[in-house]
Amino acid sequence: MLKPHTTPQSLAYVDGELVAISEAKISILDWGFLHSDATYDVSHVWQGRFFCLDEHIDRYYAGMEKLRLSIPYTKAQLAKLLLNMVAQSGLRHAYVEMITTRGQPSPGSRDPRTCTNQFFAFVVPFVWIIPPEEGLHIAISKQQRIPSASVDPTIKNYHWLDLVMGQFDAYDRGAQSAALVDENGNIKEGPGFNIFIIKGNQLFTTNTGVLQGITRKIVMQLAQKLALEAPHALNTKVVLGEISTDAFRRADEAFATSTAGGIMAITQVDDTVIGTGRIGPLTTQLKEAYWDMHTQSKYSLEVPYPK
Amino acid sequence: MLKPHTTPQSLAYVDGELVAISEAKISILDWGFLHSDATYDVSHVWQGRFFCLDEHIDRYYAGMEKLRLSIPYTKAQLAKLLLNMVAQSGLRHAYVEMITTRGQPSPGSRDPRTCTNQFFAFVVPFVWIIPPEEGLHIAISKQQRIPSASVDPTIKNYHWLDLVMGQFDAYDRGAQSAALVDENGNIKEGPGFNIFIIKGNQLFTTNTGVLQGITRKIVMQLAQKLALEAPHALNTKVVLGEISTDAFRRADEAFATSTAGGIMAITQVDDTVIGTGRIGPLTTQLKEAYWDMHTQSKYSLEVPYPK
Repeated sequence: MLKPHTTPQSLAYVDGELVAISEAKISILDWGFLHSDATYDVSHVWQGRFFCLDEHIDRYYAGMEKLRLSIPYTKAQLAKLLLNMVAQSGLRHAYVEMITTRGQPSPGSRDPRTCTNQFFAFVVPFVWIIPPEEGLHIAISKQQRIPSASVDPTIKNYHWLDLVMGQFDAYDRGAQSAALVDENGNIKEGPGFNIFIIKGNQLFTTNTGVLQGITRKIVMQLAQKLALEAPHALNTKVVLGEISTDAFRRADEAFATSTAGGIMAITQVDDTVIGTGRIGPLTTQLKEAYWDMHTQSKYSLEVPYPK
Repeated sequence: MLKPHTTPQSLAYVDGELVAISEAKISILDWGFLHSDATYDVSHVWQGRFFCLDEHIDRYYAGMEKLRLSIPYTKAQLAKLLLNMVAQSGLRHAYVEMITTRGQPSPGSRDPRTCTNQFFAFVVPFVWIIPPEEGLHIAISKQQRIPSASVDPTIKNYHWLDLVMGQFDAYDRGAQSAALVDENGNIKEGPGFNIFIIKGNQLFTTNTGVLQGITRKIVMQLAQKLALEAPHALNTKVVLGEISTDAFRRADEAFATSTAGGIMAITQVDDTVIGTGRIGPLTTQLKEAYWDMHTQSKYSLEVPYPK
């Protein structure tokens, strides 16, 4: 049971109950752990407002459907449950994760159809991957991102060993994070983020073998909108196509997109400084437009904190 | 705390304590769950004897080293801990799983180097995937097994979504389990098992993109040994090479190997009956030799059950 509190705290929703995060546990026999047989989504709360919650919930349900998982809530019930969890936590800047696992099969069975799927959610304080005024130093990893033919990347999943090994590789080489490639050496994604480059008036991002990120989608929409509003100052065209490692290194600007951190400038790739080595003007413009959206009621929902 | 018991029961080792399996839980924030950042091994106990425990422990430690994970036990201490866990459980036919997870990073960090790795183990009753006198009906899945360039398959890991989706696909097509392929369409492995075929006097299994299974290794040793002992009756030569889907369907005999179930005959692939449709003579011979090893002190260790 939760104790009444006055300071913000991390909370979780487990077995239909709200509990302190320290009590949020899953059976080690759940296939969500033993087979990484699960899908999830992460949304965030900024200045007490839930950002793009409906889009995250839509993607989460689409992932469940593809994995033949289900939870006993409608989308509207889930939204209410998450809003209540955040309200109870008191956190005004937070990550909110929703998870469905396969559960455990019937005793003696190994048939996933006998499992009772499990629902979990948690809210924890928002953390910056890097301070927002800094640029990321990325190492291009030899590690290949798990291909779509093995695991559908549009289903948000916990198959991260390639990303974790890429991260270790990056640290070994003095970088802060990694960009993984496909079997042709084209840039795919990093641990938890999509990658964009800007060259001339074009904004490039790959469309295959990656998560269809929500921040990624917002950036594409913002780029179109900014181009229409200021056709001479910023006529940035969005191109969906492969990014070679060479193109990545020769970019005018580059950035990573993620719910965790939003739009993060990439200012160095291996030993190559990108552009001026500082956050570029188009990246800055997109970042500002992105954070401006967080206070607009079209994109964000007020959390009903207790008075 | 464990209650004294007289009937065999599943147990687990969590946070340095032996607990009932129902209490065996992991934090939902552990990266072993959230990033499937973990390695494990599964050994089995048969007729009160631990089979090939040292080999499983060796592979487990090798996997930890590759993933930069560690536990505070020597191999000898781990063996003792597992033997004691099984002894306390009273189970005489059991699976024993040992797990190391990354753990949780320091508050506010996403750096895996700040994590305290966690150790878990559990013992549960032995279950047959199929009754040992039956053959498996396998469907060849379109799902590709996660390639080595993404996740090193010699590190036993929980990246199973491809295998789980293959399993669903198999059920949809009326089969019992699935064989996954690589990008060239060659047969790799199924959910938790390696695959062998016999054609003429040759035993084929792939050597790339698969777990280097311990049952797989034993089968190769047994095949060599049986060939030497009875060169005219069974001069089976082991060939490490790719198995095409055609070769799989045209095999004289085929079988799956796994700690869970040992050597399991495959008697149907999609709509094609393999050989006579019954467990073949060489498969039977290998199976008998495999189970005979379980009572030999060279390969198995007596569990010190309380008197």
